[in-house]
Amino acid sequence: MHHKRSIATVCLSGSLPDKLEAAAAAGFEAVEIFENDLLTFEGSAREARRLCADLGLEIAIFQPFRDFEAMPEPQRARNLDRAERKFDTMQALGAELLLVCSNVQAAALPEPARAAADLREMAERAGRRGLRIGYEALAWGTHTNRWRQAWDIVQQADHPALGLILDSFHTLCLGDDLAGLAQAVPAEKLFFVQFADAPRLTLDPLSWSRHFRSFPGQGELPVAGFLRDILAAGYCGPLSLEVFNDEFRAAPSRRIARDGLRSLIWLEEQVGNAALPAMPKLSGIEFVEFAVDHAARAELGAMLGTMGFRHAGTHRSKDVELWRNGGANLVLNAEPDSAASERFQQLGPSVCAMAFRVDDPARLVARAEALLCPVWRERTGEGERRIPALRAPDGTLIYLVENPEGGARRIWEDDFHLEEAEATGSGGLLGMDHAAQALAPGMMDSFVLFYRALFGLEPDTPWELPDPYGLVRSRAFASGDGSLRLPLNVSESTRTGTGRFVSAFAGAGVHHIAFATPDAEATVAAAAARGAPLLDIPSNYYEDLGARFGLEDAELNALARQHLLYDRDAQGGTFRHAYTRAFRDRFFFEIVERAGGYAGFGAANAAVRMAAQRRLPRGD
Amino acid sequence: MHHKRSIATVCLSGSLPDKLEAAAAAGFEAVEIFENDLLTFEGSAREARRLCADLGLEIAIFQPFRDFEAMPEPQRARNLDRAERKFDTMQALGAELLLVCSNVQAAALPEPARAAADLREMAERAGRRGLRIGYEALAWGTHTNRWRQAWDIVQQADHPALGLILDSFHTLCLGDDLAGLAQAVPAEKLFFVQFADAPRLTLDPLSWSRHFRSFPGQGELPVAGFLRDILAAGYCGPLSLEVFNDEFRAAPSRRIARDGLRSLIWLEEQVGNAALPAMPKLSGIEFVEFAVDHAARAELGAMLGTMGFRHAGTHRSKDVELWRNGGANLVLNAEPDSAASERFQQLGPSVCAMAFRVDDPARLVARAEALLCPVWRERTGEGERRIPALRAPDGTLIYLVENPEGGARRIWEDDFHLEEAEATGSGGLLGMDHAAQALAPGMMDSFVLFYRALFGLEPDTPWELPDPYGLVRSRAFASGDGSLRLPLNVSESTRTGTGRFVSAFAGAGVHHIAFATPDAEATVAAAAARGAPLLDIPSNYYEDLGARFGLEDAELNALARQHLLYDRDAQGGTFRHAYTRAFRDRFFFEIVERAGGYAGFGAANAAVRMAAQRRLPRGD
Repeated sequence: MHHKRSIATVCLSGSLPDKLEAAAAAGFEAVEIFENDLLTFEGSAREARRLCADLGLEIAIFQPFRDFEAMPEPQRARNLDRAERKFDTMQALGAELLLVCSNVQAAALPEPARAAADLREMAERAGRRGLRIGYEALAWGTHTNRWRQAWDIVQQADHPALGLILDSFHTLCLGDDLAGLAQAVPAEKLFFVQFADAPRLTLDPLSWSRHFRSFPGQGELPVAGFLRDILAAGYCGPLSLEVFNDEFRAAPSRRIARDGLRSLIWLEEQVGNAALPAMPKLSGIEFVEFAVDHAARAELGAMLGTMGFRHAGTHRSKDVELWRNGGANLVLNAEPDSAASERFQQLGPSVCAMAFRVDDPARLVARAEALLCPVWRERTGEGERRIPALRAPDGTLIYLVENPEGGARRIWEDDFHLEEAEATGSGGLLGMDHAAQALAPGMMDSFVLFYRALFGLEPDTPWELPDPYGLVRSRAFASGDGSLRLPLNVSESTRTGTGRFVSAFAGAGVHHIAFATPDAEATVAAAAARGAPLLDIPSNYYEDLGARFGLEDAELNALARQHLLYDRDAQGGTFRHAYTRAFRDRFFFEIVERAGGYAGFGAANAAVRMAAQRRLPRGD
Repeated sequence: MHHKRSIATVCLSGSLPDKLEAAAAAGFEAVEIFENDLLTFEGSAREARRLCADLGLEIAIFQPFRDFEAMPEPQRARNLDRAERKFDTMQALGAELLLVCSNVQAAALPEPARAAADLREMAERAGRRGLRIGYEALAWGTHTNRWRQAWDIVQQADHPALGLILDSFHTLCLGDDLAGLAQAVPAEKLFFVQFADAPRLTLDPLSWSRHFRSFPGQGELPVAGFLRDILAAGYCGPLSLEVFNDEFRAAPSRRIARDGLRSLIWLEEQVGNAALPAMPKLSGIEFVEFAVDHAARAELGAMLGTMGFRHAGTHRSKDVELWRNGGANLVLNAEPDSAASERFQQLGPSVCAMAFRVDDPARLVARAEALLCPVWRERTGEGERRIPALRAPDGTLIYLVENPEGGARRIWEDDFHLEEAEATGSGGLLGMDHAAQALAPGMMDSFVLFYRALFGLEPDTPWELPDPYGLVRSRAFASGDGSLRLPLNVSESTRTGTGRFVSAFAGAGVHHIAFATPDAEATVAAAAARGAPLLDIPSNYYEDLGARFGLEDAELNALARQHLLYDRDAQGGTFRHAYTRAFRDRFFFEIVERAGGYAGFGAANAAVRMAAQRRLPRGD
């Protein structure tokens, strides 16, 4: 069955009209009016009602009414007066349901019977006006903090205008669940359900709730299981998002509203309640594309040459070159009047696109459309392939190409004149190992949802990397088979490498591309011989490495000679890797060798890399 | 006795040389070398040693050595090898003491005797090289997390090269203290002591420690009591700061180093171990000074005129006017080639100074100098008074004038030609109620320490104020008698009013000045009659007010008529206040009436105010 999709105005930034317009533009059908948004609104409640009606938004609920039940007199009588005033507002607003959350006052009496009597009286008064009351257990309620307690009180009050409201955060943050809901609570008594996810933090529930809630799929709570239990109980009201998040409050309301609706669609898919085109099968990065002009291309080509890349082909109709080393393809796009040139004008030489190999690009495009992700198509020359593409939340293009292992012709064969010797590829690289993106602060949750909902990628454990000028938070996405690895980096500090990159670009993008090799020592030695600008690593690093891993001096010396960093995981998997200096302070390359199933990115070495990068003058 | 003052390099941003230079410039005598800072340093350990020597810094300790004790074989043998390698490094570095923190590995054996045997072996090896080992209980150590456990192990190990290290955070974050220290631990076994404060958070100790430590006086832990117990135990080593703080990592190292040393001096004063000129007695704000040009002064004067201010005097030698309403004085400074004109050139019309009334300005200047706060003196005309001033951490000048209630002549009597009628003041305002400052992100801790250490002001509970475009965090300082009230506002979001103000000013400053009146209704009515640009408050606000406080309609109507907001505290104290629109989007005024001991700032109304301000076009 169709559940209306709803969002609480508190999730979004701006004035009440801004919030409502953003919700309607994303495609929500209903809203929760958060009281604070009404009382800071300059128009009347009646005008707010008209605004919603004009936007096609139903007002699903008015919220919250706090600290009502089980108060001693004279507060009890005053609270009933307060409720009558709010009923006036609701009637002007055209909101039929009021959310009453459990009392958090120390003065609240520990008497469920009193709570039930008070709520019954409130419901009686509401019912006379055609209004209804939903009672919700806050995780930090003084006496009522579990849904079963709230249900006991609702049951005891036994009034048709009184029902139960559930909120995934309040239940899941306590480690509680909805076991027994379907047996205990008749569907018609489930008046409303709110959804929020959150990262797992060891914070008190109040602070956790007020600052770190996120949309389903952005956090770590089992929200899908919660929805499953809600549906099993026969609930047929709206699915509504209620999120308090410091970053969402400061972000553009349209992006956040779209993320919100995407999260609900994805959540319904998780429980089989929404049929979307299936998740793609991913098999790596086919190419990374750079926006350049001729001067930058010559310079970048020279740098790539030192790393064993060769100019392997030229586009049939565009000013675009293919550079290749074994399985690693780089596209250098200097075509005027293209998306690449637009980016070059704005940002200088930079990564403008990545191409992911997928089993069925058309199906993924359909999935993206169902999930409200912008799809993009570049103009093509005659007889050339049209490569479908998506826009990531930061505007980076993600091309979708068919996995060549399935027998599909590669884009190079159709759209490029390939150098004879390059038709099958040569050189020592296996392909792309990973491409890391620097995100503007506040963008991590949008990316997490994008990669998770569209591609089925799961975020790895977050890392905190100490740049000499502040922390960089890193989170990597990887496909199950390890063919696609996408670390995301974000820094609150504008003085870190990541922060400076984002400030310089007034946005974000790929700033770090790693190539896989079966033999890092040989690959790096060859690169060094060709004059590759490898990043110098301090000798103190190798002394510490010796102490940490007990490596023999011969091995340490070999690593040091090739500027190679080293890591080893608990299972003995190893990682040898070297970095280049940055190209015009914009992006840098890495050569990595994985062995024994090592799945990380050498996070322990990031501090050394970042300090070494900061020692270089800008532009070096 | 004199304790060397020391700081861990991890407290500061930048490369190892940056950190050392900042520590030396602030006046530290010693440093803790944090291992990561050495291994990212491009020079050798010997070069780091020379760098410290050239800067006059002793290397008090090398840290940390992790996960050493009570490991099963073969890890135990490997750890001893690792220690030998680190001893090599220490000898090159010239560091004599190694900090070993308690093991956090799950594999660590729950056997204090094994831990003692391992540490004894380590100490024996260290001792052979003339090195020493200090053992410290981490709050999240697998088996050792209290100092008494660490001491039991050290005692059991019984080796002259092994002693105890204490850290205020690790002890205090667990609610533990040093009771019994002096009785249990001989002074010569207290090898080293580290200090950190922190806000009280309900986070796990590890996350709390890694991100939210701060310098003594910036947080809420009883660090002074900790120091008292340390001194009582006869400790005579360095007092060393070890702080992990996300904001400090991203901040300029010289500011943070200076804050650090200031915090140690203040901390020693708390326990009677440092004699500083006594805390001032504060009695309010004598004036607020604006940097203007003639056009801005005319415009601001016109606005002030609607609020009942009159041009009351003119400076004898400078292009400076005094505007006055009762006890509230504003100085409009258009003098060319002054600190004010410099600020005006940079920032346009803005608050450039405040003057605090104190019992003894000279004593406070001496105190400021002892606490490393920059003192500032403006040039003066012949026969004019030289007003001593301090620079707040954001550069705002704070003049110090003698409290006129003590009989001192006021600055106006000496330096200004006063209008005849104004000599004694007229008009209805009582004076300044508060002046709020917008801080750049990352500046709160610097300000907390500045107000606390210099002036003895205590920070109030933090508030979170919901601007329509993000949260604003607010913390107020007030003198005990309420004569001086200084709220500080900071916002991570650049889209909030506070964030926009800070971005526009590329800095920070006073953006909100509140005047006290005995009768808000009359004062505001008179201002309205004179055409004051009062901020419109939505009618929904008054409906909610009625519901919340049960006010009668007549009172609500009276409030609404005068654009007055209202708050009431739990003791029945009330607050009536109204705002003006902002002057050129820079600063705004407030008129406030306190009754019944109300001590807050109407935080519950801040959201309404901020939403109303954002509805106005910029510049209105």
